[in-house]
Amino acid sequence: MDAPAVAAAYSDGMPLTAIVLAQGDEIVSGSTQDTNSGWLGRELLQRGVRLVGVAAAPDDERELADLIGYASRRCDLVVSGGGLGPTSDDVTADAVARAAALPLCFDDEAWRQVAARMRTFRPQVPECNRKQAMLPRGALRLDNPIGTAPGFAVDLGRCRLFCLPGVPSELKEMAARHVWPWLERQGLRPLPKKVLHVCGVGESMLQERLSGVALPPGIRIGYQARFLFNSIVLYADGAADDAGERLTRAREAVLERIGGDVFGEDGATLPQVVGAGLRRRRWRLAVAESCTAGGLGALITEVAGSSEWFMGGVIAYDNEIKREWLGVSAQTLERHGAVSEPCAREMAEGVRRRLRAEAGLAITGVAGPGGGAPDKPVGTVCFGLSTPVETRTRRVSFGDRGRDLVRTAAAASALEWLRRRLLDKG
Amino acid sequence: MDAPAVAAAYSDGMPLTAIVLAQGDEIVSGSTQDTNSGWLGRELLQRGVRLVGVAAAPDDERELADLIGYASRRCDLVVSGGGLGPTSDDVTADAVARAAALPLCFDDEAWRQVAARMRTFRPQVPECNRKQAMLPRGALRLDNPIGTAPGFAVDLGRCRLFCLPGVPSELKEMAARHVWPWLERQGLRPLPKKVLHVCGVGESMLQERLSGVALPPGIRIGYQARFLFNSIVLYADGAADDAGERLTRAREAVLERIGGDVFGEDGATLPQVVGAGLRRRRWRLAVAESCTAGGLGALITEVAGSSEWFMGGVIAYDNEIKREWLGVSAQTLERHGAVSEPCAREMAEGVRRRLRAEAGLAITGVAGPGGGAPDKPVGTVCFGLSTPVETRTRRVSFGDRGRDLVRTAAAASALEWLRRRLLDKG
Repeated sequence: MDAPAVAAAYSDGMPLTAIVLAQGDEIVSGSTQDTNSGWLGRELLQRGVRLVGVAAAPDDERELADLIGYASRRCDLVVSGGGLGPTSDDVTADAVARAAALPLCFDDEAWRQVAARMRTFRPQVPECNRKQAMLPRGALRLDNPIGTAPGFAVDLGRCRLFCLPGVPSELKEMAARHVWPWLERQGLRPLPKKVLHVCGVGESMLQERLSGVALPPGIRIGYQARFLFNSIVLYADGAADDAGERLTRAREAVLERIGGDVFGEDGATLPQVVGAGLRRRRWRLAVAESCTAGGLGALITEVAGSSEWFMGGVIAYDNEIKREWLGVSAQTLERHGAVSEPCAREMAEGVRRRLRAEAGLAITGVAGPGGGAPDKPVGTVCFGLSTPVETRTRRVSFGDRGRDLVRTAAAASALEWLRRRLLDKG
Repeated sequence: MDAPAVAAAYSDGMPLTAIVLAQGDEIVSGSTQDTNSGWLGRELLQRGVRLVGVAAAPDDERELADLIGYASRRCDLVVSGGGLGPTSDDVTADAVARAAALPLCFDDEAWRQVAARMRTFRPQVPECNRKQAMLPRGALRLDNPIGTAPGFAVDLGRCRLFCLPGVPSELKEMAARHVWPWLERQGLRPLPKKVLHVCGVGESMLQERLSGVALPPGIRIGYQARFLFNSIVLYADGAADDAGERLTRAREAVLERIGGDVFGEDGATLPQVVGAGLRRRRWRLAVAESCTAGGLGALITEVAGSSEWFMGGVIAYDNEIKREWLGVSAQTLERHGAVSEPCAREMAEGVRRRLRAEAGLAITGVAGPGGGAPDKPVGTVCFGLSTPVETRTRRVSFGDRGRDLVRTAAAASALEWLRRRLLDKG
């Protein structure tokens, strides 16, 4: 919950308040996930804006007009995404006109831009596109260099309303061109911040371990939860010149408490960090996967250029493949079973040796929902890591929390474990 | 856009209108994705409710109270998720009390339930949990059998407001226990529907191909977009007895147009359907993956019990592994390159032969952002499929739409291609 921290930072000086709006039946009815609002929320927050709401209306002029009216009475800034297309369910301009009691007027320059854009991919401009040039009287036209739909801005009482297109790439471009400069004119710039990333440590555990940590004045701490990957965000109050220096000290204080768990900073991903670690050691990695069945390989190769440190591996779903392709002994499988540390050890050593890699990383576990046993309940996963120095194994219980979660957590944990090994000597 | 269809179905008979609310700084600020509201929206829609909005307020009693007031004046039903916990940022009860101008009262039975639940995992019940037993005067307590936070319902004017906990499993359980029965008492039950799933055919293409399709009376058509996996939803107006029969006829009319593209119905996933097809033929599958690096294996094994038809495979990220482990010839790599149909053919045949599977499926491509060439731009992916009957190859251009998208689309396309092959004779 990083918002209250930032909101609090501004609550004395009457912060600028904002509401983010979206439009569309498909959003209201949950048939598509609205990602624009979250992105706008994060960006506004980071500029010191206090968010007082996020809302969506269906493709209904009256509902949207009423929502715009409500929002504009409650805050200083409304940013709306979507509803600027040429079809009859695009009703944002009509709704704003209704909310503001203004007529819609044909904007020649908007039409020139729409038509020019349309002509780049079809010879005739359809009549329905004329609708996109109808703006509420007196609205400020916002040029859209990458799409057909121009945006616009109007003032409703003391509230500035920006209407941006709903295509995410266009919305982001238009926010950068039109909304952020407006915020800068109000004195709001992105707050200096520092982000520290951890893997597999929950938010409540982080809060507990950081409770009472001494931070320099004007530094607030927040958290972002992204399933297995959580982040600690340090914000500096924007105005003072020494924000950077205070952030550096705050970062050190936090690292003193939880440094071992922080795998990267400021957007670095775990696969990137592990890749850099392998490259530093000139180690190439091979994987042997049973229950994740490729999830670890796919995770590692999210990074472009990963062929430099990743060779490939074996998806050993069937025990026959564990034996024949990885050299796991029949005796190990019989005595300990496929989900065991001895099996994980032989998988890691086998894939390392046979693919002639420096590091071999193996996963074998019970993802569920079936296949559990009293001594190996669903969620039990064994890992093996073989390097030029030694082979290590470990066993983790992720609990019976669903097949997807167990498999995703297993792949991420394997990578985090490798990261820590790469930091060790030898 | 399935919402307008359904909304239209009810617009004559004055449908029940609803707004879904969420609470939390982390939602408003976009630091966590709110999945509850989408779920509630879909469920309400399917019961014939007309959704007129979805909104979220920060952890701020006044903001939330104002939003509740606004929502309750605009519709017949408000369902709110979250804000019922014991900490100071849980403000839903306070906000409702403020919006309804009612005092909060201590509810003995609610407290008994909270305390009993708490005692199952700690000896002492913290004082702060007493807050969870404070309900607006006259509110209907809603028992929560799986969590500590009881919910409650109140009437604000003509609007019924349900306040449910924010933990997704608890919210779903409470909706089933308390909200759906209330809707049934208003005469609203889930609308009969039929869902048809396709892979890789976009919504606009579906609309085009289905335009003018003759549907029985009282059947509406809608679409759900889930990235690569899209669905056609056929809804039957609820009242009449022949809804099932009309849905059957509508399904046939749609299948006549796009039957070849429909891989499954009513929630079936592509990996499930492919698994069933392999089982039917008694074929076991092995995969050889280059650019997806395990993504295909991970997708196939999303299905529990997939070891019956999936053996495993080789992640051949490095060309050395393609040669040594899959038997791709040096000549092929030299003459055609690793991203080529000849290479995909040899990968598929090699993994099939060496793992002694009946079917071998191979992927090799340029995921980007680097590695493109004039004849093989970023997004070019070659596929190979080897079966007891023959080996096929194909080449697809997914375009330079980001590394993630190319890799995900490549894995899904491979599976859809295999599905179609399994339907062929031989």
